[in-house]
Amino acid sequence: MRMVDLIRKKRYGKQLLKEEIDFIIKGFTNGEIPDYQMSSLAMAIVLNGMSEEETTNLTMAMVDSGEILAYPDIKGVRVDKHSTGGVGDKTTLIVTPLVAAMGVPVAKMSGRGLGHTGGTVDKLESIPGFRIDLTPEQFVRQVNQSKIALTGQTGNLVPADKKFYALRDVTGTVESIPLIASSIMSKKIASGSDAIVLDVKVGSGAFMKDLNSARELAEIMVHIGNNLGRRTIAVLSNMEQPLGFEVGNANEIKEVVEILRGKAVADLKELSLTIASHMVVAGGRCGNFAEAYQAVKEALESGKALDKFREFVKAQGGDPAIIDDLGILPQAKHHLEVRATRAGYVQSIDAEQVGVSAMMLGAGRQRKEDSIDYAAGITLHKKVGDQVVVGEIVFTMHTNRESWEDAEGLLKQSFTISEHPVEGIPVILDVVGVGLPASEG
Amino acid sequence: MRMVDLIRKKRYGKQLLKEEIDFIIKGFTNGEIPDYQMSSLAMAIVLNGMSEEETTNLTMAMVDSGEILAYPDIKGVRVDKHSTGGVGDKTTLIVTPLVAAMGVPVAKMSGRGLGHTGGTVDKLESIPGFRIDLTPEQFVRQVNQSKIALTGQTGNLVPADKKFYALRDVTGTVESIPLIASSIMSKKIASGSDAIVLDVKVGSGAFMKDLNSARELAEIMVHIGNNLGRRTIAVLSNMEQPLGFEVGNANEIKEVVEILRGKAVADLKELSLTIASHMVVAGGRCGNFAEAYQAVKEALESGKALDKFREFVKAQGGDPAIIDDLGILPQAKHHLEVRATRAGYVQSIDAEQVGVSAMMLGAGRQRKEDSIDYAAGITLHKKVGDQVVVGEIVFTMHTNRESWEDAEGLLKQSFTISEHPVEGIPVILDVVGVGLPASEG
Repeated sequence: MRMVDLIRKKRYGKQLLKEEIDFIIKGFTNGEIPDYQMSSLAMAIVLNGMSEEETTNLTMAMVDSGEILAYPDIKGVRVDKHSTGGVGDKTTLIVTPLVAAMGVPVAKMSGRGLGHTGGTVDKLESIPGFRIDLTPEQFVRQVNQSKIALTGQTGNLVPADKKFYALRDVTGTVESIPLIASSIMSKKIASGSDAIVLDVKVGSGAFMKDLNSARELAEIMVHIGNNLGRRTIAVLSNMEQPLGFEVGNANEIKEVVEILRGKAVADLKELSLTIASHMVVAGGRCGNFAEAYQAVKEALESGKALDKFREFVKAQGGDPAIIDDLGILPQAKHHLEVRATRAGYVQSIDAEQVGVSAMMLGAGRQRKEDSIDYAAGITLHKKVGDQVVVGEIVFTMHTNRESWEDAEGLLKQSFTISEHPVEGIPVILDVVGVGLPASEG
Repeated sequence: MRMVDLIRKKRYGKQLLKEEIDFIIKGFTNGEIPDYQMSSLAMAIVLNGMSEEETTNLTMAMVDSGEILAYPDIKGVRVDKHSTGGVGDKTTLIVTPLVAAMGVPVAKMSGRGLGHTGGTVDKLESIPGFRIDLTPEQFVRQVNQSKIALTGQTGNLVPADKKFYALRDVTGTVESIPLIASSIMSKKIASGSDAIVLDVKVGSGAFMKDLNSARELAEIMVHIGNNLGRRTIAVLSNMEQPLGFEVGNANEIKEVVEILRGKAVADLKELSLTIASHMVVAGGRCGNFAEAYQAVKEALESGKALDKFREFVKAQGGDPAIIDDLGILPQAKHHLEVRATRAGYVQSIDAEQVGVSAMMLGAGRQRKEDSIDYAAGITLHKKVGDQVVVGEIVFTMHTNRESWEDAEGLLKQSFTISEHPVEGIPVILDVVGVGLPASEG
């Protein structure tokens, strides 16, 4: 088999066979296939696509490039959750204690990563004392005791994806449904979960800008998961505006606690209840979505999920006092307001621009070696559909930096106001994969 | 400017600007842009194409990557000829003495290269004593004296093309009309010709398999040449079957001499007269094609072109006696016949398969370091449309190797015989660019 012939095959729009995909991923991972051939193939895949079968085979070839985790000692069905990423997306931190409170084991592996704000790990590390360096034994013990534990990415999982993603990033081949789907699913499968609930974001602040391509991505991931014996469901959720009212690290933890305390943050609460309910069904705790939704809502309203979050923070060395006193979380030196200059109704808030502004204030990383300011971020005071009067606060910026003009300028551009009433945006757009059986894998 | 953004631009089907193309070619040539980015861009160009303007800009950027030759001391309009390559294509060796005999200066630079048989240089070197290592002064003096001289590729011409072609070869990005057009035209322009006649081959034995894509390639090359101030004409010629009756090195020289002596080899003679006539018009010796054709035919039939070839061989150290005694040319040890096993009319002869067979017998190079057996090759005894009886010879194989079963097997497959009469194939399919004025460049 010669790589150049396989590139040509894809260039002419033909399907690659399983053994050809295995040859490519093995050769690329061990360095026998050079980057310049892999990037040429990647562009051919970007432009000519891949079938579901090819994408499933690519996923498994990537899984097989490294370790595959298994936790035979964890009791119950392990349900994992993955979001394709959005601005203000702290759903994982609300959903995991909710699900754990329902008795479904949450053994979560999470990363730092690049972006507008930190990853789930960064957000949790804004809690004084919180640590993620659990040994595998501690991790399993904590899941069995508390039903919830979170660790950083361990082991040599999917090295092919790490290498391939780094190459795609510099060769203009990131945006590709089969490549994104296989990247996400290979990591979920290698980390040993039994079932997967995906949150595919759609809109200006997301990778998928329109519902059709988001649905296509969701469907292929659901099919891959089910083809490989993992029950998989995908929720399509709106990312036209930031999720909730807080963007940053410490202030997203604050909003998580507020929600768990019962605060009504419409979009974030609805999305969290929906995802948690699908996870509870996938975990076998409830027979259907309606039943699960009722039970999960009760776990939230009764304070059981808040207790579970407290137990989780404490178990991982964090200061549980933050739950009763949010003032203990890191606080920024400067708090600056962006106000409306005309009256009306908020028509749009560009999630992407709010995210970039948060990064400019110190909340995110542009490069791996950048450090994060946990206290930096943005509070939204208005969401799409809300009425505003002239001079009312739309955003508060939080930062320890001494210059914020760029972020301020961008935030001023990020929203539009209409004279006429504007309808709010629904957060759940669709669900893919309910009722599909997983194969025997 | 960042390469990744330019890759993305082409990935999304947008046009690259002149300064962007200059940035890419300069960066790639000096090593600042890595191969893995260039190959990704190449695949995006392959699949999304390039406009005429982009292709012209790419050609000029490649020309500017190295030396540009100029021969101010050569008198007259220098007309160059280029063939996209085919099996049995010895046209250059017939056309150049024809044109020189008409007083048009032929200062030809030619290469060895890879392929089924050697390049023009290899074919000439099968003449005992022939040498191509002329100094620039000898080269110019010989052109002014004899109107014809041939040298190997000298100088650092179009280094970007050398590097890019090597990369395209291993990344499945060779077949692309804008990339082929800019590669060919950049070399023609850098070698300093004033006008260019292109022979674009079409058919199973050529790079361009169908007339439409060949015409597209021809048109873009003609436009590039004219855009850059070089009067350019392209002949589209048939390469469904090998050209003429001889494939190899010494035996192609033999056929060249035979044609110049007046032998009627229909397709090869017609193509040579046509190309030579366009060159004579482009060189300003005749006002139109019909007039030129008449004059060139007369130069052939009168023996002037044969005399010119003799003068050329002698001037470059070759033994002119070969012209009167073809037996002086290298002779193979073995001559083996492939015969027809059924009667009828030759319906097709796959040029590609005949070419590969010739290489198997020793006539060509697979890798740069391979050596060529000048005596190896194939003689065709039949062409498409010819009648055959059972047991008649279709091919003779010439080789010094002791095993020829593979070549023999391939040759047996290479032709088909029909019960019914078959029409011969016309050699000239179209001409592009006659009457188009060259710009001021």
